[in-house]
Amino acid sequence: MRHMNNSLLLIRFMIATKPSVLLKSYLQNRKQTEDLCSPLQVEDYAPQAVIFTSPPKWHLAHTTWFFEEMILKKYLKHYPIFHKDFGFLFNSYYETLGKRVPRNQRGIMSRPSVDMIYAYRKHVDSYMKELLDSAISESVEELIILGINHEQQHQELLLTDLKYTLSLNPTFPVYDTGFSLVNDQNTGSGWLKIPEGIYKIGHDSEGFSFDNESGKHKVYLHDFEISKALVTNEAYIEFIEDGGYETFNLWLDEGWTWVNNNDIRSPLYWHKIDGIWCSYTLAGLQKINPKAILSHISYFEAMAFAFWKGYRLATEFEWEVASVKIDWGKRWEWTNSAYLPYPQFKTASGAVGEYNGKFMINQMVLRGSSVATAAGHSRNTYRNFFHPHFQWQFTGIRLAR
Amino acid sequence: MRHMNNSLLLIRFMIATKPSVLLKSYLQNRKQTEDLCSPLQVEDYAPQAVIFTSPPKWHLAHTTWFFEEMILKKYLKHYPIFHKDFGFLFNSYYETLGKRVPRNQRGIMSRPSVDMIYAYRKHVDSYMKELLDSAISESVEELIILGINHEQQHQELLLTDLKYTLSLNPTFPVYDTGFSLVNDQNTGSGWLKIPEGIYKIGHDSEGFSFDNESGKHKVYLHDFEISKALVTNEAYIEFIEDGGYETFNLWLDEGWTWVNNNDIRSPLYWHKIDGIWCSYTLAGLQKINPKAILSHISYFEAMAFAFWKGYRLATEFEWEVASVKIDWGKRWEWTNSAYLPYPQFKTASGAVGEYNGKFMINQMVLRGSSVATAAGHSRNTYRNFFHPHFQWQFTGIRLAR
Amino acid sequence: MRHMNNSLLLIRFMIATKPSVLLKSYLQNRKQTEDLCSPLQVEDYAPQAVIFTSPPKWHLAHTTWFFEEMILKKYLKHYPIFHKDFGFLFNSYYETLGKRVPRNQRGIMSRPSVDMIYAYRKHVDSYMKELLDSAISESVEELIILGINHEQQHQELLLTDLKYTLSLNPTFPVYDTGFSLVNDQNTGSGWLKIPEGIYKIGHDSEGFSFDNESGKHKVYLHDFEISKALVTNEAYIEFIEDGGYETFNLWLDEGWTWVNNNDIRSPLYWHKIDGIWCSYTLAGLQKINPKAILSHISYFEAMAFAFWKGYRLATEFEWEVASVKIDWGKRWEWTNSAYLPYPQFKTASGAVGEYNGKFMINQMVLRGSSVATAAGHSRNTYRNFFHPHFQWQFTGIRLAR
Amino acid sequence: MRHMNNSLLLIRFMIATKPSVLLKSYLQNRKQTEDLCSPLQVEDYAPQAVIFTSPPKWHLAHTTWFFEEMILKKYLKHYPIFHKDFGFLFNSYYETLGKRVPRNQRGIMSRPSVDMIYAYRKHVDSYMKELLDSAISESVEELIILGINHEQQHQELLLTDLKYTLSLNPTFPVYDTGFSLVNDQNTGSGWLKIPEGIYKIGHDSEGFSFDNESGKHKVYLHDFEISKALVTNEAYIEFIEDGGYETFNLWLDEGWTWVNNNDIRSPLYWHKIDGIWCSYTLAGLQKINPKAILSHISYFEAMAFAFWKGYRLATEFEWEVASVKIDWGKRWEWTNSAYLPYPQFKTASGAVGEYNGKFMINQMVLRGSSVATAAGHSRNTYRNFFHPHFQWQFTGIRLAR
Repeated sequence: MRHMNNSLLLIRFMIATKPSVLLKSYLQNRKQTEDLCSPLQVEDYAPQAVIFTSPPKWHLAHTTWFFEEMILKKYLKHYPIFHKDFGFLFNSYYETLGKRVPRNQRGIMSRPSVDMIYAYRKHVDSYMKELLDSAISESVEELIILGINHEQQHQELLLTDLKYTLSLNPTFPVYDTGFSLVNDQNTGSGWLKIPEGIYKIGHDSEGFSFDNESGKHKVYLHDFEISKALVTNEAYIEFIEDGGYETFNLWLDEGWTWVNNNDIRSPLYWHKIDGIWCSYTLAGLQKINPKAILSHISYFEAMAFAFWKGYRLATEFEWEVASVKIDWGKRWEWTNSAYLPYPQFKTASGAVGEYNGKFMINQMVLRGSSVATAAGHSRNTYRNFFHPHFQWQFTGIRLAR
Repeated sequence: MRHMNNSLLLIRFMIATKPSVLLKSYLQNRKQTEDLCSPLQVEDYAPQAVIFTSPPKWHLAHTTWFFEEMILKKYLKHYPIFHKDFGFLFNSYYETLGKRVPRNQRGIMSRPSVDMIYAYRKHVDSYMKELLDSAISESVEELIILGINHEQQHQELLLTDLKYTLSLNPTFPVYDTGFSLVNDQNTGSGWLKIPEGIYKIGHDSEGFSFDNESGKHKVYLHDFEISKALVTNEAYIEFIEDGGYETFNLWLDEGWTWVNNNDIRSPLYWHKIDGIWCSYTLAGLQKINPKAILSHISYFEAMAFAFWKGYRLATEFEWEVASVKIDWGKRWEWTNSAYLPYPQFKTASGAVGEYNGKFMINQMVLRGSSVATAAGHSRNTYRNFFHPHFQWQFTGIRLAR
Repeated sequence: MRHMNNSLLLIRFMIATKPSVLLKSYLQNRKQTEDLCSPLQVEDYAPQAVIFTSPPKWHLAHTTWFFEEMILKKYLKHYPIFHKDFGFLFNSYYETLGKRVPRNQRGIMSRPSVDMIYAYRKHVDSYMKELLDSAISESVEELIILGINHEQQHQELLLTDLKYTLSLNPTFPVYDTGFSLVNDQNTGSGWLKIPEGIYKIGHDSEGFSFDNESGKHKVYLHDFEISKALVTNEAYIEFIEDGGYETFNLWLDEGWTWVNNNDIRSPLYWHKIDGIWCSYTLAGLQKINPKAILSHISYFEAMAFAFWKGYRLATEFEWEVASVKIDWGKRWEWTNSAYLPYPQFKTASGAVGEYNGKFMINQMVLRGSSVATAAGHSRNTYRNFFHPHFQWQFTGIRLAR
Repeated sequence: MRHMNNSLLLIRFMIATKPSVLLKSYLQNRKQTEDLCSPLQVEDYAPQAVIFTSPPKWHLAHTTWFFEEMILKKYLKHYPIFHKDFGFLFNSYYETLGKRVPRNQRGIMSRPSVDMIYAYRKHVDSYMKELLDSAISESVEELIILGINHEQQHQELLLTDLKYTLSLNPTFPVYDTGFSLVNDQNTGSGWLKIPEGIYKIGHDSEGFSFDNESGKHKVYLHDFEISKALVTNEAYIEFIEDGGYETFNLWLDEGWTWVNNNDIRSPLYWHKIDGIWCSYTLAGLQKINPKAILSHISYFEAMAFAFWKGYRLATEFEWEVASVKIDWGKRWEWTNSAYLPYPQFKTASGAVGEYNGKFMINQMVLRGSSVATAAGHSRNTYRNFFHPHFQWQFTGIRLAR
């Protein structure tokens, strides 16, 4: 249920949440999703540019479907389903929950209309309000919190997918002039040293977490240093100008194939116009600010850059240990760790757990959070993950040695 | 400019057309395009299901672009262009007229909006009215008539492309309940005999024609017979039930590959539901009427069926000679002629002629017209053409021997 | 059974053939196939470079399989089959005659060995001799003549496939130094005029013919002129230097896609080395002789060149009519006719007829013969055919207007 | 230089090796490669079935090329190179050492012949003998030992690649009747417990090792148990019969796609014939022995099986710690560890180091060794690695919990 992955996840709570607080949190979050859509024209809700993105309309409906399918249908007596077809139209799963629309055909579904989707949201919200006003069990409460976190993940994807789609329009449409990246600069500098030893990794305290980060456990780390700053545009331009994209021995073997098959010569969204590097942003086409933090690079590019610099990427464990002493949070930072289970990882049963761990292959872990991440959504144990060739998230590079 | 082909074509006129008649004809035709869109929701204007179809929005804009680019910019003094980007956004050409949107990304262009496209049409129409109210040369008149015929071709594509897109929606949306195919039956029966001899083929009389049908010339035909009726659904169901799709020696070699690679087991849009053959139509999902004329079959299927029956398809020359004595006009009829130039065929110069003949390879000629063809658009010398595996036009089978 | 097509074909004989003549002809032809292999190392018999070529080993075995499967098994009592697996290993058909080796895996079959294939040939030849020494019916005689013609077709493919394979070896191996193309020049010049009228086309006289050329019939031709010479290398180099490959409006739409997707910039086998055009030949890498006749171009290239020159290609009917007055025979000449059935064409029944007409789609007719064609194999009614993008046959261009 | 990976690797030696011992070791190893080829026919040396396998001829030449290129050319004065083209013909690298034959065209190179390759080996061996008889530096000694280990890796690939190629031949050729798997059974049973704690991982003692396993370092392991036996055929047949290949929630998401896109329904080489499971082996087609150890499964299958059983795979660290107390060595065992660098990993400079670490993405680590591994080649710190969908190595499953 998460971006391309859509995994449903285990949750555990350490503190009780007051229903009224939960209702408020639910409604605020639902509103936030719709606020993100306020600059959109009806036509913007529909297109799906590539298989790994989804249309805004689909994000709006799918996050609502979660509450209907996982909660209202099961825990609210006499709940009247909004429309019999929505159960499979907005389901990202394969088979447990019935037939579905092929992932690559989400942009073709002109019906139901955008108005209908908003009516669907309103319908579900009113019954969710009814449910939240009643006495609910702790496990239902947990599911609702999971649903909120799930919707936050889709808020981020809504923005990154939208950026990808609009970027293909030769008129470079402006989504929101507030989305300029000009001031997006580092606050720290230099290297942080971390001594060798046993460290505890993973989430095991109060509050919500996803199952892939749970199960606090020990890892042994060797001495390392990690940069307090992320790589900037000007550092990366130096790499480009030094022939980085043409020097095969800087690249992983599959990275070199990717670079050449796709004729990659810069980060995603970059255009060299009359000798000046520009970038498509959600505020339209803008000149690259050399001092701003680099964004939209693949793991392959991150690795090639680090190798060119004579450094490396941190592992996700090094990152987590260092995270308490460095500024992070405007970019998803590629780590040199593959997305694999923690020692106590277990798959939940039923539809919620159906896909636990399902994506733990051929993906690399990213840590941090991005400008598109919902406030309060991430934390320093949070494990994001993407295939090594993807560039469309707000991804950056932090060096280690 | 014609469907996938989009060829611009030579025109020759044998009679003068009165400007007032031309204006009326222009406006009626423009209105007809918009009338076809009246049942649409805003969301329906956008999607492009596959590379060989285009969104309604694109058809609306591209037909307008023709009048702006080919006529107003050149022949109306002080014409203010509507928007500087539209020149390449709605151009189906490659290079003569500048950069363009890749054909497979038409569905991604959420901007300009549908409202903007209608404003574009209104703008162009008002200046076209101004032009047509003035004294115009015969060659401009010819270009306007070409533009009208061009828009009629897109009216047909608008419908067939829309049908394809809506058919992929699992809710089977209704476009117009008037589009039932129930009464779509043959009027004639039996065989028509045509004696051996020299016949004249092609268009050479008064009125508009496209360049590919022009240049009346002689061909020698041998004795043949042609069916007065088109193949019906029940005849085709017999072929299916006799294992037609599983019998390799009924098929052309590439047809057999196509059938198996795409798992084709029936005409396009057919679904067997609880043992009953149904078909998606623009009036929604309907039971197949066994007596109705078969539709939506590829050339490969037409050839396999004819071979199974012990007959063959007519050549386009046989068809044209027979056409004056048979009823035709509800289906595009596959012929056994490849789309190749007539003896006097010449390519026009400049943008209008840029693509003359460009599509004369790997396509088969269809004759007749379909339920989606604009009234008065086709004629018995008209040469339509598609690749042998395409099914999405309203195509049918007429047997010969 | 014919190259990629492998069609089996109807035969009709107008004169009786003496058995002793037939035996001699059979044995000479069999020897000719083996003589073509005499310069080969064992390793050369095996590789299949691409799906449209076959290894020499396969050609040697498949032509032998024809005689065993179609003749000896049916018409020679007590014939002991050579090996039970060869029936499907060297069968190019789909299903009538049982399972087979996928076309793209012919190069992987290291067993049976080359020695075994030669033993197979010897075995079949000795029993064919026995059969031919006995009294045989006219229909068996016809099958044997068909088998001889079939093997001649594979002799040509053996050479053209081998050239393709060796050309990919960076050491440019020499097959036979006699295969220099230096003296391969035109004898005629100027244009031949043919007047309008009814002409008879097709084979209907004594001697062997394939079914696709049979059924003499009338066609009406308009006045035309045809070049007495084929296009030379220097004329084509002029086209290249004039930017022919970069000028999109010279090309058919699918041709332009082919040129760009495959980065085609010259005829097949051409290399520009230190500013000099060279070509891989069966005699190794050689400098291009400007006066020699151009070879190894696709239909797309032939059409673009003709358009650039302001001329066109002849139809196959024009070619056949002109053929009695012009020199032809060192190149297969692309015509502007699609490969489609003649009016009286009928599919034969059974395995021999299984694939008649099966390839009559998306291919263009070539007339003439090439340096690789067996002596006496072709004639002026002979219809060869290939897809418009293929370059690996010895193909050339003759202009018409 | 290693199978698909071809990595060249750092070496460090802890003990001096006597030249005479090294010469003997060199010659024995060279002979071993040729002995593996003794059952082959000339034709068997050539084919390349798929891009991830190489022909025997190529393995024979490439291992020889290593000694010529890396050692003789640099360290033996007056060494006469065997053939100027061999430098790029048998190079698996990209660019540092010049142009090369595309990886997927190795099977097309009919020249140089097999005889020529053996002459090449003889030539190189005689000069290597000369070099080894002289005084050589420690670093040359190290390179020679690396070359020997490199050739051992190719000995294994020669066998596994050959098996893959022969398996596609419908006659199921026998390579060596000694290659029956009948007695290939487990010796241990039950579970081994390993207590939580810090363990040392990696190679840091005397003798040769590759760079990817070097740099002994500490890892923290939690309590786990590991099976003393590998999964047998009968256990896996139970999984198949329980619908394992049809149950999507047993599979990683990409595994499920792989299973369905390739219609995988059993381990590689398995065939169900008349209801009996058989398997192609290098001794020909044989009935599956239910008690024998399972082989030729992908990581995806290993993971699905483990999940179905309620267990998991061990990490490579758990495996290494347990390895001293369990029998291992007839199968490469998939671990649940991605192939990533150890903490002290550094890339060597120059051609030898060119590809260090280049393959550390999207591959999973395998530990152990297989029936095809050269005696003495592997060790318990050895890290093998393949993509998760590959089945053609002798891979097996060891469960953990």
